[in-house]
Amino acid sequence: MKKYRVGILGATGTVGQRFCRLLEDHPQFEITALAASDRSAGKPYEEACAWKLPGRIPAAVRYIVVQPIEPPLDCDIVFSSLPSSVARETEEAFARASYPVISNSSSYRMDEDVPLLIPEINGDHVGLIEKQKENRGFTKGFIVTNPNCAVMSFAPPLAALHGRFGVEEVAVTTLQAISGAGYPGVASLDITDNVFPYIAGEEPKVEIEAQKILGRLGSNGIEKADFTVSAQCFRVNVVDGHTASVRVNLRETATLEEVVEAMRTFPSLDLHSSPARFIDVTNEPSRPQPKLDRDSGQGMTVTVGRVFPDTVFDYKFVALSHNTVRGAAGGAVLNAELLISKGLI
Amino acid sequence: MKKYRVGILGATGTVGQRFCRLLEDHPQFEITALAASDRSAGKPYEEACAWKLPGRIPAAVRYIVVQPIEPPLDCDIVFSSLPSSVARETEEAFARASYPVISNSSSYRMDEDVPLLIPEINGDHVGLIEKQKENRGFTKGFIVTNPNCAVMSFAPPLAALHGRFGVEEVAVTTLQAISGAGYPGVASLDITDNVFPYIAGEEPKVEIEAQKILGRLGSNGIEKADFTVSAQCFRVNVVDGHTASVRVNLRETATLEEVVEAMRTFPSLDLHSSPARFIDVTNEPSRPQPKLDRDSGQGMTVTVGRVFPDTVFDYKFVALSHNTVRGAAGGAVLNAELLISKGLI
Amino acid sequence: MKKYRVGILGATGTVGQRFCRLLEDHPQFEITALAASDRSAGKPYEEACAWKLPGRIPAAVRYIVVQPIEPPLDCDIVFSSLPSSVARETEEAFARASYPVISNSSSYRMDEDVPLLIPEINGDHVGLIEKQKENRGFTKGFIVTNPNCAVMSFAPPLAALHGRFGVEEVAVTTLQAISGAGYPGVASLDITDNVFPYIAGEEPKVEIEAQKILGRLGSNGIEKADFTVSAQCFRVNVVDGHTASVRVNLRETATLEEVVEAMRTFPSLDLHSSPARFIDVTNEPSRPQPKLDRDSGQGMTVTVGRVFPDTVFDYKFVALSHNTVRGAAGGAVLNAELLISKGLI
Amino acid sequence: MKKYRVGILGATGTVGQRFCRLLEDHPQFEITALAASDRSAGKPYEEACAWKLPGRIPAAVRYIVVQPIEPPLDCDIVFSSLPSSVARETEEAFARASYPVISNSSSYRMDEDVPLLIPEINGDHVGLIEKQKENRGFTKGFIVTNPNCAVMSFAPPLAALHGRFGVEEVAVTTLQAISGAGYPGVASLDITDNVFPYIAGEEPKVEIEAQKILGRLGSNGIEKADFTVSAQCFRVNVVDGHTASVRVNLRETATLEEVVEAMRTFPSLDLHSSPARFIDVTNEPSRPQPKLDRDSGQGMTVTVGRVFPDTVFDYKFVALSHNTVRGAAGGAVLNAELLISKGLI
Repeated sequence: MKKYRVGILGATGTVGQRFCRLLEDHPQFEITALAASDRSAGKPYEEACAWKLPGRIPAAVRYIVVQPIEPPLDCDIVFSSLPSSVARETEEAFARASYPVISNSSSYRMDEDVPLLIPEINGDHVGLIEKQKENRGFTKGFIVTNPNCAVMSFAPPLAALHGRFGVEEVAVTTLQAISGAGYPGVASLDITDNVFPYIAGEEPKVEIEAQKILGRLGSNGIEKADFTVSAQCFRVNVVDGHTASVRVNLRETATLEEVVEAMRTFPSLDLHSSPARFIDVTNEPSRPQPKLDRDSGQGMTVTVGRVFPDTVFDYKFVALSHNTVRGAAGGAVLNAELLISKGLI
Repeated sequence: MKKYRVGILGATGTVGQRFCRLLEDHPQFEITALAASDRSAGKPYEEACAWKLPGRIPAAVRYIVVQPIEPPLDCDIVFSSLPSSVARETEEAFARASYPVISNSSSYRMDEDVPLLIPEINGDHVGLIEKQKENRGFTKGFIVTNPNCAVMSFAPPLAALHGRFGVEEVAVTTLQAISGAGYPGVASLDITDNVFPYIAGEEPKVEIEAQKILGRLGSNGIEKADFTVSAQCFRVNVVDGHTASVRVNLRETATLEEVVEAMRTFPSLDLHSSPARFIDVTNEPSRPQPKLDRDSGQGMTVTVGRVFPDTVFDYKFVALSHNTVRGAAGGAVLNAELLISKGLI
Repeated sequence: MKKYRVGILGATGTVGQRFCRLLEDHPQFEITALAASDRSAGKPYEEACAWKLPGRIPAAVRYIVVQPIEPPLDCDIVFSSLPSSVARETEEAFARASYPVISNSSSYRMDEDVPLLIPEINGDHVGLIEKQKENRGFTKGFIVTNPNCAVMSFAPPLAALHGRFGVEEVAVTTLQAISGAGYPGVASLDITDNVFPYIAGEEPKVEIEAQKILGRLGSNGIEKADFTVSAQCFRVNVVDGHTASVRVNLRETATLEEVVEAMRTFPSLDLHSSPARFIDVTNEPSRPQPKLDRDSGQGMTVTVGRVFPDTVFDYKFVALSHNTVRGAAGGAVLNAELLISKGLI
Repeated sequence: MKKYRVGILGATGTVGQRFCRLLEDHPQFEITALAASDRSAGKPYEEACAWKLPGRIPAAVRYIVVQPIEPPLDCDIVFSSLPSSVARETEEAFARASYPVISNSSSYRMDEDVPLLIPEINGDHVGLIEKQKENRGFTKGFIVTNPNCAVMSFAPPLAALHGRFGVEEVAVTTLQAISGAGYPGVASLDITDNVFPYIAGEEPKVEIEAQKILGRLGSNGIEKADFTVSAQCFRVNVVDGHTASVRVNLRETATLEEVVEAMRTFPSLDLHSSPARFIDVTNEPSRPQPKLDRDSGQGMTVTVGRVFPDTVFDYKFVALSHNTVRGAAGGAVLNAELLISKGLI
């Protein structure tokens, strides 16, 4: 099989490193270009990068010389994990230069003509791409995005419920991992023996992204799902894995069994990075736990547990996903696989 | 001033140790008796007790010989931090033997004739004691209790709001410290790099205690406050300090300023262990934090922050209190001080 | 290939769980019997076991009914991770009942006729088995052991140096992971925001095992290596991976390059669980680190770094290995593979 | 009593904050000036400073406007916790401008005419100040320093042994707290579930400072103590409190009792910040521990435990001190108190 040649924007960061790891033995992609800030440009990746994932730097990228973050790059598509401060301008430049841009940044997520994709939920939203090209005068290039890592932990069970019973209101409190802030990110003095009750800009993202993800693609673009989300976001002392404490009101009556069933049977896809189960529902009282469940399905499965009727809402549950795999690099890779399967790359 | 002679039931446990520390230089109390399980009885406290608080065992208790947990004990009142499995029977035996029992256990909290006290909120509930004596045939002894440590973190701001605007619904997600489980308590393998989504028996307690605490004492006992609480309880990797993510619906309209004002001006008392401020409201975006705020007011202040209008509820906020001080031993000591001030001991 | 049928003694513990994981897809072994304490016996493994490793219980063992820890068991060989209190008697009973016993317990490690094996270092010590059978009247069964998990982190570089230059004195300070104490093991209150300076019985083990491991098998058994080891052992807040701070005096002069070369070129074996490199020497100043290096070689590689001349000793370095893989279950599995390759099973 | 007016150089950093806390109710000092980098200058302290110590910013400094780090400052003496990159030049400028400079920086520690002080050990080294003034042409100002925070944990027991038996060789492995690196300092991703085996520049400091501290002041300056120190330095996941694993060879024979006695009876001083015990020797097998012992003597006591004969050295022990109190701000404050008591300020 011919492999697509991939460039990574923001290659030295935490998510950039995760891309390098995930694509190490990927049958459809090979990394041919790494781009990072001026400080890194011109150095071999192993010198430019303070590698922070278990194990050593993958051999395939170790000696690639890091380039500035601007087109052209020697590749067919680009994965972007740029900080939002530079993402907006740079990603557009790449799209304009005919690269499909698979972005993990927040810059374009809420733009009306940009798909905010979770392939198992709203793969049809790639239908926005045509309009995006027209709107923006892109010829071959375009931009697709994946959701905020905290949203990724609860949007899947929400999608399962919304499709069957209609979701009306959601209150979510997140307990987020330190890797979500990148490197150096969270100071150890801020999180050892501590909980940090504030993540800049996070609560608004968590409150708006799910409605677009679960929205319906119509002739006028995405019609957002009509539920309201309340978010309180905390950083806790966990390396990887965002946990969400979720309460939900449904539009239609549903029994506990129906609620569990809707989640458990929500289908996965048949893409290379798709997990055997998209949503794994456990009935062990002390699961999900980040340490035990984040790597489920190679980090691509969302685990749900403690599903119970609630006193104030209809139901409550706990959801967990791996924030730098499913919630970042892995989600983007799956998006790219989806685009290939649909002939859009 | 004459000092009351105090006995500690469950003296070797985490909360028992905290009692010893808090009473070290207390002007109204001196420890004269320590009682613990058969395994410890007969040994000097320093041998019986695996001391886990910073510093060494207070000199005043080091050589006290631990006694079995049964009356008589050489003291005027007893503080109890017994595990609930034995608390019910044992505390009754002490009350029947004429000891005022200031209990931190859950056994009697919801009994109709037992006060569940937070002195700043419902000190008048000591009015139940007379009836309790009648009901149970106690002559001089009686039982009063303090709330569950997680409830203690959010009941105070709730009381402030309930008194002014009426509380209708509450959704609380707790991030609880490991000291709340005693010693050895939480295994390090369960909480290092992890969140534990289950605390046995905790969610039901959190859902029922606040209504009694905020209830009104009438001629037929406590008329519970008519709001509903939803609880999801998590253990996180923090030594001391329970954090609560709270959302609340009010019966009357209130502006953000009124909400903050109601909390900020809720009065403290003038007892020895009363903090200068009962509720400290901060507007720093990243407070409260357990590490920075748990010791506020010598651990007796509840800190509230991140008070904002909510998308699903009326308001949301974060509340924090020291679980083994205000939420356990310190709360019990304050209860004893209240009883003295009211002439009930 | 015919698979050997394996029984696990102490199957529900931390190391027992690790055995189940490591043997999940092993080409030479299949688990056919699980044995644990009376409390567990009679229950299916998934009920008897509080599974603490990432992911779910392997399907192959989930429904195996746990048996009491006594022969006979339906298997060809047994792996033992029994607590030392019961290991001595029980392991002998199995050996006497004709089972090869591959033990991770400390009970027999220092017995003169029992091999203390690290296959890459002293595979020839299996020569003791014949004598052991004679001594103890075993017919087919026998006992082999693997070292203490802390010893495993520094014995390999020591072996590399001893073979080339002769080791004279060793001072080792260990920073050991919490998983080394099993479950529930270390209380979170003892290790969160803390260092624990004492591990019961550990320093003596660390001071005596290496001399036997690096000893020479002669006609009178093992002639121990003639160096002295000083040990100070600490528990630190790390899940997996023991780090050792090592200083060493050599009998012959050696340059830094020769020292590094001796470690780097120390050969691995060709057994199924052998890592590509037995000793991986890094020159990155901030490696080895437990989080980044413990899983090297699927947890079977020992990583060495910060090799420098020392002011008091000849050289100092830092060594690290995965305590529940290479230092426990993985080491035992490698021992079994060695025994098969030598025709002893 | 007249209070000395104090300026803090580097006031917004971790150690600067600790100075503000320690001087909050000090009978001899009041803070009248705060200086920090250009970024902070001109702002009130509460705005310039990301306060990271428990509790709120002390009221006395909250509104002091931060000034640039250059003389003149409105104060009698300055405490410096400047990063070493700027300390050398700046501290000289203040000394030249007639300020006594009590420095916590490493810049001048090893200069021949600058005292490196631990008052209980070498208070007479202030005799260097006269010579320093001559050498450098200072009129009234001068510089004194306190040791590296890791050295502070083991120099006191070493001093006790050196004075009685003569120390010949020392091997020390440190387990250092994250607060030692300042804020933001150690990234949480580098230390959660991890040990970091490298602290830039630390091992050389640990290997040279003790000889000067324990040296003898003669007519030609300090004659260094003639022992050798070997250091391996690790960062561990502890907030405050450096632990040292120490082995020592003595020049004269000493029994274990004599060794313990020498440490236990080493006298404290009678200065305001002097702890009741300078060295507290414990015989509890699992002490010292950072969490339990760092605050001993308000953080000014050094705790020693696990004193045993060693197999390679004469003795081994574990020593612990609070790195940002005794090992930084508190040590500097004690130095200032010493200078006052000697009439040098």
